[in-house]
Amino acid sequence: MKNNRRHFLQSAAAVTGGALLAGIAGSKEAQAAVQSGNLPPDVPSWMKKLGTGVEAAPYGEPVKYERDVIRRNVPFLTATTESSVSFTPLQDLDGVITPNGLCFVRDHGGTPVVDPVQHRLMIHGLVERPMVYSMVDLMRFPTESRIYFTECAANGGMDWRGAQMQGVQFSHGMVHCCEWTGVKLSTLMNETGVSPKAKWMLAEGADAAAMTRSIPIEKAADDVLVAWSQNGERLRAENGYPLRLVVPGWQANTSVKWLRRLKFGEEPWETREETSKYTELMADGKALQFTWAMLAKSVITRPCPEKPLAGKGFCEVSGLAWSGLGKVKRVDVSFDGGANWAPASLQEPVLTKSLTRFRIPWEWNGQLAYLQSRVIDETGYIQPTIVEMRKAWGSNAVYHKNAIYTWRVNQNGTVDSVEVN
Amino acid sequence: MKNNRRHFLQSAAAVTGGALLAGIAGSKEAQAAVQSGNLPPDVPSWMKKLGTGVEAAPYGEPVKYERDVIRRNVPFLTATTESSVSFTPLQDLDGVITPNGLCFVRDHGGTPVVDPVQHRLMIHGLVERPMVYSMVDLMRFPTESRIYFTECAANGGMDWRGAQMQGVQFSHGMVHCCEWTGVKLSTLMNETGVSPKAKWMLAEGADAAAMTRSIPIEKAADDVLVAWSQNGERLRAENGYPLRLVVPGWQANTSVKWLRRLKFGEEPWETREETSKYTELMADGKALQFTWAMLAKSVITRPCPEKPLAGKGFCEVSGLAWSGLGKVKRVDVSFDGGANWAPASLQEPVLTKSLTRFRIPWEWNGQLAYLQSRVIDETGYIQPTIVEMRKAWGSNAVYHKNAIYTWRVNQNGTVDSVEVN
Repeated sequence: MKNNRRHFLQSAAAVTGGALLAGIAGSKEAQAAVQSGNLPPDVPSWMKKLGTGVEAAPYGEPVKYERDVIRRNVPFLTATTESSVSFTPLQDLDGVITPNGLCFVRDHGGTPVVDPVQHRLMIHGLVERPMVYSMVDLMRFPTESRIYFTECAANGGMDWRGAQMQGVQFSHGMVHCCEWTGVKLSTLMNETGVSPKAKWMLAEGADAAAMTRSIPIEKAADDVLVAWSQNGERLRAENGYPLRLVVPGWQANTSVKWLRRLKFGEEPWETREETSKYTELMADGKALQFTWAMLAKSVITRPCPEKPLAGKGFCEVSGLAWSGLGKVKRVDVSFDGGANWAPASLQEPVLTKSLTRFRIPWEWNGQLAYLQSRVIDETGYIQPTIVEMRKAWGSNAVYHKNAIYTWRVNQNGTVDSVEVN
Repeated sequence: MKNNRRHFLQSAAAVTGGALLAGIAGSKEAQAAVQSGNLPPDVPSWMKKLGTGVEAAPYGEPVKYERDVIRRNVPFLTATTESSVSFTPLQDLDGVITPNGLCFVRDHGGTPVVDPVQHRLMIHGLVERPMVYSMVDLMRFPTESRIYFTECAANGGMDWRGAQMQGVQFSHGMVHCCEWTGVKLSTLMNETGVSPKAKWMLAEGADAAAMTRSIPIEKAADDVLVAWSQNGERLRAENGYPLRLVVPGWQANTSVKWLRRLKFGEEPWETREETSKYTELMADGKALQFTWAMLAKSVITRPCPEKPLAGKGFCEVSGLAWSGLGKVKRVDVSFDGGANWAPASLQEPVLTKSLTRFRIPWEWNGQLAYLQSRVIDETGYIQPTIVEMRKAWGSNAVYHKNAIYTWRVNQNGTVDSVEVN
């Protein structure tokens, strides 16, 4: 990757006949200001007076100039905003960590405000020692911190049916990536003595929907966290305060928020959210059930409809890739709708079941271009085309759309979502 | 590390004659609730009504129950709050990422509110092509994202002189750890054609103090970022919006906030902040200058004065370690004031010049204990004792106190800061 980038930079320098990256020549006042010896611009007003004291913001907030960087919902998408979703503004984000204030929210009965002193987690069913834990109890256990992505199964669902949402916030924004801290579920399973007969676990949330999912015992005993912390601080209410499951790599609604109950049993419970919802209707009328893992997906977040190109010349194309099955191994980018591909560089460290930032330098010649990214994960799984997906899945499904996505860059630099076959 | 923990858990089980971790037996209502078949407690009030809709919090904030988790300042510490500091609440944090709202703030002339449209970065002095960049220009360059700690040189300075601040927020809270995104300074140096004669770089901030530091060219060309993003989103005003240097591993005031100017030259500029301040007065009356790297330090963040022990039995001792010279290699913990040491486990991934979370299981017998942590970094540097530090540095210095720190756990579970010789 490094060689690739170095080679590009050399090319860019050659093109422009100097060391400058093509098109980034600095502001127009540069030469005048530098030659006159004056600082550019004149000393600004904010240097001429004292700023705000450190006591002003005990808990800091974004600066006023960034007030448009927010989660957004789609009013017509759902009948109520209590059972609805807001989307992460991927177009505005860098790196891989999603700040807590911008993590997408998917609620089924609204966000409850749960009193952490009153909150309890009950563990029962096929266990030797049924238990009821307070938050104080839970926070005494050995802890673990991991960076994982969390993606709603319906991410991309609107485009799945050809809606072609204009903007990466709505087409891909039901995903976030945080550092989670909590106790491993396997520790609690050991503590309560889960029976060898138990093959499934029911997780129930303390919201008005009592969000409830069945999770197979192998996953429960593997890498699942019972978490109370998100990017260092306690969970936000809308992300499950004071306690939630984090089921790495699986559809987000298995990561039950406001977690109040874990029951172990021999069979799945066939809850609403794993029968009438979160199943995929195939072309033949049958439905797939228990399609938990979010398969590898990638998307270019810059440029995108919300972030058009400013002009010809150098442009870093950047995006996110992830896989519910493990680490991202490679991301390729195409500028011609999939005819030719070039490998992008991956930001280190590449972590399992985490977002991975990819980047590739591009010199835009001002002509129509079709940008795509394609991820390959460590299992060898390759992100499919939309044609491959429709062939395998039909077009009735709402969930698990992970097809290669296409941005058309128009000659004026604007960017549209298009479906390329 | 894994073997160590497993061994402990087996021991704990043996002690209590079952699989329970000693002391964590769940809430008192457990057996009654479980045996009666009722959920614990009765279905809470927040499950009986719809919660808040997703449109309610376009940019989310912490839940009301966490309103005491804030940055705090020490009113008597400085003459004004514009040239002052607020401290990160390390006692409340998990993992290694510091959420942006809780990152400590050290300002020299208050926090300015800088208009990103008007803001410029000038690069001049010994360069072939002096440049003035707007934010739009800068954000077109190739980017990099890295997780680094940022520590004020004065972190621990109050205790350096024996103040024994009671609480980890004030004794160690001038440090935070974020994922930064920006352009590598070396890229801008290539663009502007820094002369081989240039040995130093001056960085100037656009605050009322015009915070100014000299940085040697070798560091500038190495791993320094010109950053606009912090944990995914744009910088907060108090952390340098819209642009700052990130000088990994070095005293934080070299990571100049509100960055407006970089000048290349042959000699350091001997600014106020590298002559009368940010130098260390030795016992012989001479002062050390340009002591940039923050040497390896560690501290136990739980238990601590703000987080006393709830009772006897199992307790996970957890803390943070870091080194400005590279990666943390190992952290040892002592429960008897440094007589005996045991290795802690390190949370993966261990990243260079980043905070590293360490943990070790402990069974507290209710008796007086003296807890210490000691980090060794990948260069082999070992965190010194306070005796070693005073021997080498005297007691006049304010900056770079990185000595092993001692928490005395009293019989009632409260925790005090003490100096153990």
